Amino acid sequence: MDPFDARSPREALELVSNLLGCSLTSSEVATYLDKNDELKHLREQFMIPQVAELPSTDLKLVDGTKECIYFAGNSLGLQPKMAKTYIEEELDKWAKTGVHGHVHGTRPWTWAENTIEELMANIVGAKGAEVALMNGLTVNLHLLLLSFYKPTAKRHKVLIEDKAFPSDHYAVESQIQFRGYDPKRSMLIMKPRPGEEVLRTEDILETIDKEGDSIAVVLFSGVQYYTGQLFDMAAITKAGQQKGCYVGFDCAHAVGNAELRLHDWGVDFACWCSYKYVNSGAGGLAGAFIHEKNAHSVKPALLGWWGHDLTTRFQMDNKMDLLPGIGGYRLSNQPVLLVCPLQASLEVFAMTSMAALRKKSRLLTGYLECLIQLHFYKDDGQADKPYVHIITPSNPEERGCQLSLSFSVPIAAVFHELERRGVACDMREPNVLRVAPAPLYNSFSDVHRFITVLRSVLAASRI
Amino acid sequence: MDPFDARSPREALELVSNLLGCSLTSSEVATYLDKNDELKHLREQFMIPQVAELPSTDLKLVDGTKECIYFAGNSLGLQPKMAKTYIEEELDKWAKTGVHGHVHGTRPWTWAENTIEELMANIVGAKGAEVALMNGLTVNLHLLLLSFYKPTAKRHKVLIEDKAFPSDHYAVESQIQFRGYDPKRSMLIMKPRPGEEVLRTEDILETIDKEGDSIAVVLFSGVQYYTGQLFDMAAITKAGQQKGCYVGFDCAHAVGNAELRLHDWGVDFACWCSYKYVNSGAGGLAGAFIHEKNAHSVKPALLGWWGHDLTTRFQMDNKMDLLPGIGGYRLSNQPVLLVCPLQASLEVFAMTSMAALRKKSRLLTGYLECLIQLHFYKDDGQADKPYVHIITPSNPEERGCQLSLSFSVPIAAVFHELERRGVACDMREPNVLRVAPAPLYNSFSDVHRFITVLRSVLAASRI
Ligand SMILES: Cc1ncc(COP(=O)(O)O)c(C=O)c1O
Ligand SMILES: Cc1ncc(COP(=O)(O)O)c(C=O)c1O
Repeated sequence: MDPFDARSPREALELVSNLLGCSLTSSEVATYLDKNDELKHLREQFMIPQVAELPSTDLKLVDGTKECIYFAGNSLGLQPKMAKTYIEEELDKWAKTGVHGHVHGTRPWTWAENTIEELMANIVGAKGAEVALMNGLTVNLHLLLLSFYKPTAKRHKVLIEDKAFPSDHYAVESQIQFRGYDPKRSMLIMKPRPGEEVLRTEDILETIDKEGDSIAVVLFSGVQYYTGQLFDMAAITKAGQQKGCYVGFDCAHAVGNAELRLHDWGVDFACWCSYKYVNSGAGGLAGAFIHEKNAHSVKPALLGWWGHDLTTRFQMDNKMDLLPGIGGYRLSNQPVLLVCPLQASLEVFAMTSMAALRKKSRLLTGYLECLIQLHFYKDDGQADKPYVHIITPSNPEERGCQLSLSFSVPIAAVFHELERRGVACDMREPNVLRVAPAPLYNSFSDVHRFITVLRSVLAASRI
Repeated sequence: MDPFDARSPREALELVSNLLGCSLTSSEVATYLDKNDELKHLREQFMIPQVAELPSTDLKLVDGTKECIYFAGNSLGLQPKMAKTYIEEELDKWAKTGVHGHVHGTRPWTWAENTIEELMANIVGAKGAEVALMNGLTVNLHLLLLSFYKPTAKRHKVLIEDKAFPSDHYAVESQIQFRGYDPKRSMLIMKPRPGEEVLRTEDILETIDKEGDSIAVVLFSGVQYYTGQLFDMAAITKAGQQKGCYVGFDCAHAVGNAELRLHDWGVDFACWCSYKYVNSGAGGLAGAFIHEKNAHSVKPALLGWWGHDLTTRFQMDNKMDLLPGIGGYRLSNQPVLLVCPLQASLEVFAMTSMAALRKKSRLLTGYLECLIQLHFYKDDGQADKPYVHIITPSNPEERGCQLSLSFSVPIAAVFHELERRGVACDMREPNVLRVAPAPLYNSFSDVHRFITVLRSVLAASRI
């Protein structure tokens, strides 16, 4: 049996270790899985940083010529190799033809983003016309909320997670205030049960059921940035809409990570950035989605010339011919320099499918989880043995590729020591280390090497 | 006497032609002026397209190896040579260090735009803290209007030019609608007097005086995109504020073109794009300005994490510590790939001053105007002689570098024939050819060559 088809990551690892006659924790398991990984060739499409190049590396501790262990795709994805080529094409066009680039070449600047929206739509499970690439995430969230959040005395609340990403929190808070409501009353914040770290779907659904009549918008993240929890977007959408709410998602950490079916789930609106798992580079072009069912009933609040039908946009007669749906939310012309790296990445995604990526991802992150459990469990018999606690749900259906770790020893030191040894991951205040093996470019050997490094770091912390 | 110090362009040209003993229309005049142009070295900082590279060139009509006559800086500025170097630096950093680029290198991505805001502020006559680089122009205009346009039953109007740029028109229209007012009543549109093509300052001031009590926001462009008129921003600001209105400007065509003193004039707010005379490339990072006098009294309506004080932004505690003034309007993190070309251009501006550029620009555009008048006047004795009418004001104080031309013969044919002969300029519906010699990279010989080409085009149109 193919370990990639096993019912659980644990089962897969046992299968391989039996087959190889080695222990679960042996590096042979990783080597075997890499060899059998049907997506392993995709790693070649990316620039993988070398250990010696990372600014915090200590070359006394680690071989600088190796590729680093890059588990920070949840923060900033790696550079697709074609990004530079595409950017140089556009710089060349600009240098050689100036203003003519607007309508010439493979990416005419006037509609460059339109040429890759279909590719983007594929990744979020949407139709091409339901997706626009524009602006930054928070800008798009606001543009969407201005339409979808129309509070009334009876229905004025926004349901949102506790510890939502700060920008989302501020966005919702300010929208409520801007409409003359009081965030204290209108911002309905869902906290996990006492002693728990993630939200239970049943609690979310119950809250929607109980409070739904006063909720205007349900806004969750797809994958929670801090805990790594993947929400049940289908169930939340259904529950919210049954109570007459609009339901939207911030998919910053879900896009290119989880299998999204925004269209099929009937999600009302969504937005995301593209610099994490979609590898478009810092501040890359963001995405926005409005379901086609809303295309004619929900109108943009704020208009700009880019929302005007392209075929007549340049008649400049100041009579708006508004594109339906998300198209009408376009305001400014978009930068071709941001289209290039995003295109490069989306073309890599097009070499596979989100289903295939998720299949690998389940095993890759499951492998990481297993090894953490095997090595860094809490041992009541050995009080000074450092241990690792995984905040992220252990059910693969409730997470993406990221695991959020907390430690029995001071986290800042652990993070620092990992960095000195060529690991790129990130620490989030107050107390979590986020490690995200991205199925597009990370390998099972990356995971095994990470565990080896973490072992030496935690062993050192004991002294 | 230095012709660059003459009282009028005409006087300067007479001076030079007398000196050289040639006619006003001789190419020797251009050669002389170029030789004496103290800013001529700046042209070397830009990539000048070659005639053969332009897509509409007809090599039977023109020498393809020459540099083109690039008069389209009003639409898209030329590429600064350092743009590519800076972009490659950032691509290299991304490739080699991934997420670490956020806080390392010469342009740490987390605050890359902040490193060039002072340079931008110099060009618009503002203090560094009054300027933010972010988003696109129309996005910024909306963010500003959400704060500055707070209509009341008594004061609900926005005063705006007739034929404002479509995006501004739609922005104002939708803001009025969004606040529950009727654009028909609340959009106060100023038209030129019958038979005239540009607005008179006296009429603008009178309208403000008469209608000011019901006007919430006065919104003009700095330089009108269609007519090329440079508005008297100081006088308009003063008049508007005397009547209790906020006064803002769309400086898309004014920035890098006119000498702006947004701070000294007391302008309340302004926004601009950077891809025209500021040469940042298609869809480049836009700018926004709020006068420091408003920094604490005018608050952003919509918030995001980028408006949070940078020093504590990443504590992620969902407690907003809002930057004062324009800083608090930041929503999303900004793309470093757009900072690079903008930096490259701003550094060229920093090699000179807007005062020096304007001095050259007055003479350069004045030269263009003189030659048009000398060659393409209307001759009632020769009814079939094609002539050119200049819509743009002839007073250099009332225009930037652009002249807007209309023709006695069909304009589309003129435009097409110019393009075949290596001229880059643009046509705007319904009936204007915009020619903009940019003082940063255009020469007096460019102007002379343009006239020669236009002569052959118009002569051909006679047959
Ligand atoms: C005067 C003026 N305002 C607004 C815009 C719209 O700019 P953007 O697409 O960058 O929002 C332009 C674009 O050319 C313009 O010239
Ligand atoms: C979940 C989530 N929402 C919103 C944002 C804000 O993104 P932006 O700065 O692109 O608006 C981020 C950025 O990391 C994020 O992770």
